[in-house]
Amino acid sequence: MKRNLVYVVGLGPGDPQFLTAQAKTALENADVLCGYTVYIDLIRSFYPQKEVHATGMTKEIDRCRWALETAQSGKTVALVCSGDAGVYGMASPILELAPNYPSVEIEVIPGLTAALSGGAVLGAPLAHDFCVVSLSDRLTPWEMIEKRLACAAMGDFCVAIYNPSSKGRPDYLQRAVRILLQNGKSEETVCGIVRNIGRERQQSEIITLRELENKQVDMFTTVYIGNKTTKNIESKMVTPRGYRTV
Amino acid sequence: MKRNLVYVVGLGPGDPQFLTAQAKTALENADVLCGYTVYIDLIRSFYPQKEVHATGMTKEIDRCRWALETAQSGKTVALVCSGDAGVYGMASPILELAPNYPSVEIEVIPGLTAALSGGAVLGAPLAHDFCVVSLSDRLTPWEMIEKRLACAAMGDFCVAIYNPSSKGRPDYLQRAVRILLQNGKSEETVCGIVRNIGRERQQSEIITLRELENKQVDMFTTVYIGNKTTKNIESKMVTPRGYRTV
Ligand SMILES: C[S@@+](CC[C@H](N)C(=O)[O-])C[C@H]1O[C@@H](n2cnc3c(N)ncnc32)[C@H](O)[C@@H]1O
Ligand SMILES: C[S@@+](CC[C@H](N)C(=O)[O-])C[C@H]1O[C@@H](n2cnc3c(N)ncnc32)[C@H](O)[C@@H]1O
Repeated sequence: MKRNLVYVVGLGPGDPQFLTAQAKTALENADVLCGYTVYIDLIRSFYPQKEVHATGMTKEIDRCRWALETAQSGKTVALVCSGDAGVYGMASPILELAPNYPSVEIEVIPGLTAALSGGAVLGAPLAHDFCVVSLSDRLTPWEMIEKRLACAAMGDFCVAIYNPSSKGRPDYLQRAVRILLQNGKSEETVCGIVRNIGRERQQSEIITLRELENKQVDMFTTVYIGNKTTKNIESKMVTPRGYRTV
Repeated sequence: MKRNLVYVVGLGPGDPQFLTAQAKTALENADVLCGYTVYIDLIRSFYPQKEVHATGMTKEIDRCRWALETAQSGKTVALVCSGDAGVYGMASPILELAPNYPSVEIEVIPGLTAALSGGAVLGAPLAHDFCVVSLSDRLTPWEMIEKRLACAAMGDFCVAIYNPSSKGRPDYLQRAVRILLQNGKSEETVCGIVRNIGRERQQSEIITLRELENKQVDMFTTVYIGNKTTKNIESKMVTPRGYRTV
């Protein structure tokens, strides 16, 4: 019996060296690759024979429906996301729609999320308890984002910030930094920035939270805020694994 | 010129299908594989010719020193960790020791952390802002862990809990659940448990926070707590990508 199957595949940050073996197999097994144009472009050259369905960034629900309908018609679809398939990715919207397509099975294939792949570039910024927070207010009220940042600061969590900026909201990172400072993070907190993780022109930098307040970053950037113990050790951002020394 | 090199390699949850291509290459390039016995056993059969150096779980600092000294003497070492190399992993302690070994270069190779690989088993529990919190008080005072759990609940974060239990502290998960309930998480919050992610006898379950309070789990388990919007959709744990519907 042929299964009607959608793989939701986390591609990792960009370069194919970050693909897991499981993700590679799913891409190979798929009849069609479907996703945001930028991510399809990252992989299509490896599968020149495959049918592809590439759409614009905000067309996520249409893409999920397309994937489900195409699977229902008998093709195996790989719906691709950058990073992890779950983290601000496509696994969630497609699982919400799936009950309308009872013959279709969804398999989520995890991938390296930006927080971890960029973390490795910086050193070990997320070696202790951490939060991942998106500054995008497209689907989340800004007040909720502020609340989360305040709680992350009060708990002295390390923080990885996704979607730190976009054309319509150039000052969101600055606003986020101010909330962190107002809720207990010190100006000297060690922070990191990684742009184009695993892609051409990857750039990284270690700065303080004070310096971060006046930093312009773009949407291809992940931003890291350390906890009280995070250090800059020979230009690596390192959060110790605990507060006690063994 | 031969580089003195330590790769700190995140192996992912267990099965080699979760290795990235980059991690596989690092293991192949290494002269020696070094790590906690359990993780060495996961991979040594693939590299039967390689020298291995396997030590007990709590010997982490010794293992880092051994890796640095061995690299200094001219061998390329792969220091392996389960999951990601950074997240409660070996990247942080070795980067702290590295300045004592100026000829040695450290390369951190990220891997799929348990939160993400287990998340894919459950569906999409971490699709919106989330925290990762360890309940291990070996290096962190329990009061700090309580504070973090309280902040995570106040911010309505999704939470992935690592080290939820161990022989010496069988009631820590119960204590954690109570703190979450006292700080705003409702008893009906959708939660998930995944045991032995990517290994033999993988098990998962979706329950409520109330049910989680009386659950016994072991240290090979990662526990997920949803946010206010997290749903159980046909036995998948799904956190919507936002609070607004598009
Ligand atoms: C919609 S989210 C997608 C996250 C993705 N599913 C993941 O797990 O990495 C987009 C945000 O992720 C971060 N990001 C994703 N890929 C990145 C990369 N290659 N370099 C830097 N940041 C990246 C940026 O903060 C970006 O604004
Ligand atoms: C010391 S931490 C190591 C985390 C690892 N570096 C990572 O990124 O996944 C150990 C904890 O990670 C979680 N964990 C690691 N591997 C797991 C697996 N295969 N299945 C379930 N939980 C796992 C458990 O909560 C365990 O107590």
